Amino acid sequence: MFYVVFYDITDSNLRQKVSSFLKSKGLRRVQLSVFVGEMNSSTLKDVRSGLSRLHRISQEGERFSIMIVPTTESLFSKRISIPDEDLDEDKIIW
Amino acid sequence: MFYVVFYDITDSNLRQKVSSFLKSKGLRRVQLSVFVGEMNSSTLKDVRSGLSRLHRISQEGERFSIMIVPTTESLFSKRISIPDEDLDEDKIIW
Repeated sequence: MFYVVFYDITDSNLRQKVSSFLKSKGLRRVQLSVFVGEMNSSTLKDVRSGLSRLHRISQEGERFSIMIVPTTESLFSKRISIPDEDLDEDKIIW
Repeated sequence: MFYVVFYDITDSNLRQKVSSFLKSKGLRRVQLSVFVGEMNSSTLKDVRSGLSRLHRISQEGERFSIMIVPTTESLFSKRISIPDEDLDEDKIIW
């Protein structure tokens, strides 16, 4: 299944760990705090438990919220970007 | 159609305008920079042009990126939240 994963994490160190982790699972960044990609049920399980582990080390008083929303690649391809998307992804430097 | 709208906007004033605007269009906040909700094609058109108008007044050097992803309410209801979602939405204070 295709997923959109977005997060709101105030601790920079944890935020960095989350983005590296999602990248390592083959997800692709489409916005600073949003990744997308295909995951089978086994990868999804890994991702969920890895992110829960990171949540457990987050400090009281810091925001840590992640949502994993199932969608389809076909629906995602119909997204609207403002400003219009630069389709040359190599140009995007994170 | 049901949409997920997420943004990365560094200018606080513009970010506030965007969130108020999305709220005024009946969308519901599910994360600090993420809204969801049903929009018909006419509302979607309004939202797109309203957000483009806000983009035009954004300053060079500030990040301003919004994505509107079509999905379905049924897919969205299968989302995974970390930490687990508190289903009593009244408790969430933005």
